[in-house]
Amino acid sequence: MKIEVFLTSSIVSEEDVKDRTVVVIDVLRACSTIATALNNGARSIVPVADMAQAGKIASNLDQQSYLLGGERDGLKIEGYHLGNSPLEYTQKMVGGRTVIFNTTNGTVAIDQARPAEHLLIGTFLNAGRVVEFIREAGNDLTIICAGWRNRVSLEDTLCAGLMLYRLWDGVEPESASDTAHIAFTQYDHDREHLTAALQRCNHARWLSSNGHQDDVDYCLQLDALPVLPYYRDSRLILYEDERVEIAS
Amino acid sequence: MKIEVFLTSSIVSEEDVKDRTVVVIDVLRACSTIATALNNGARSIVPVADMAQAGKIASNLDQQSYLLGGERDGLKIEGYHLGNSPLEYTQKMVGGRTVIFNTTNGTVAIDQARPAEHLLIGTFLNAGRVVEFIREAGNDLTIICAGWRNRVSLEDTLCAGLMLYRLWDGVEPESASDTAHIAFTQYDHDREHLTAALQRCNHARWLSSNGHQDDVDYCLQLDALPVLPYYRDSRLILYEDERVEIAS
Repeated sequence: MKIEVFLTSSIVSEEDVKDRTVVVIDVLRACSTIATALNNGARSIVPVADMAQAGKIASNLDQQSYLLGGERDGLKIEGYHLGNSPLEYTQKMVGGRTVIFNTTNGTVAIDQARPAEHLLIGTFLNAGRVVEFIREAGNDLTIICAGWRNRVSLEDTLCAGLMLYRLWDGVEPESASDTAHIAFTQYDHDREHLTAALQRCNHARWLSSNGHQDDVDYCLQLDALPVLPYYRDSRLILYEDERVEIAS
Repeated sequence: MKIEVFLTSSIVSEEDVKDRTVVVIDVLRACSTIATALNNGARSIVPVADMAQAGKIASNLDQQSYLLGGERDGLKIEGYHLGNSPLEYTQKMVGGRTVIFNTTNGTVAIDQARPAEHLLIGTFLNAGRVVEFIREAGNDLTIICAGWRNRVSLEDTLCAGLMLYRLWDGVEPESASDTAHIAFTQYDHDREHLTAALQRCNHARWLSSNGHQDDVDYCLQLDALPVLPYYRDSRLILYEDERVEIAS
């Protein structure tokens, strides 16, 4: 299995994702929110790049069936039902509904990965389940870290490193790419004090100082939600539901 | 001194470089070639983004006074005097002449850094001299790694990490940014076997398999050329010459 890692999503070409399993990582907070919403019974998540696209999709849906969620630069969008805190996406709020989801970094990364054979959402919450899928599928792998403010972010790099560490059973192959080597090295360096390393990330500190320490604590829980958000027909659903749809 | 690091140059804004000391790192091979050419007596290096710009500048110069140098995707450009191997930029070849220099990654990074207070070229060859300048200038610092093929490259990350290690006397401050932390961690991890770590970089392997192992070996020599390529008026000159020009 060939493995490539993008530490930011700024330039990913079709060739980098086509026919591959692609994992998009945006730990704080888009991908953690997507995993949480699907775990809490949302029918699907429709990732969109801007407010115009969100409005267009919403206008074709029954008003009771969807919610508008998302953020711009960390803040809830005016008029939206939900922001980008995973803790808002409770069963009561999202159960049975479609979430039209508009975020700064995560949506861009998902959009670039659309030509993938399998497109998954990866976080600390579901890292184990993602690694299990990657192994079973057997395709070459591309991990795309969304990053933060157009920069490489430590939390996404560490999450990529964790997945590589598990895929390689803790032993990095000689042939690892530069970026895989960097993510693996960082995780190996920090894994015995992972929570402390994550709490010091620039983005975690920014969220904490803006009243979202509870989100940070929530998103850093390793393997707490073993769900697999899977992309198909312009939306994210649970992989198990995808299997049911294909069988029927 | 505030320090920010970009592990690729894909998105760097004016705000990220203005009023700061900015170091552009492209170890293999543009920045190493620039340092070598200036050390060997080139009058100046004019970095350009494409062949059209190179031709336009050349058309205003006396034919004996300049050389066209550079590469596209690692290969010499047809009709150019020189490619991107530092070993071509000998005293005999470049002494007293201006080099119009056209490269894939390095030039883009230099162009983004133009609003800087001080813009320097950093490599393993001149890392010590660069760190000395950063300390003396005292401005906030931005390091921009050019990367390779739009990705984070290990050699540029390690060179940034080396500079941080020296600036911080081997002790990373708590306040380090995510990217500074990643570069520092990688260097600290690899510093006792630095040459081996660098020889395994994707770009080093590619150059080696394309007949340029001698370039790789040359570029990885730590502190071998204590020169300071400095940007002023759309060209790179030795910092010492810049001082003379300002004084006169």
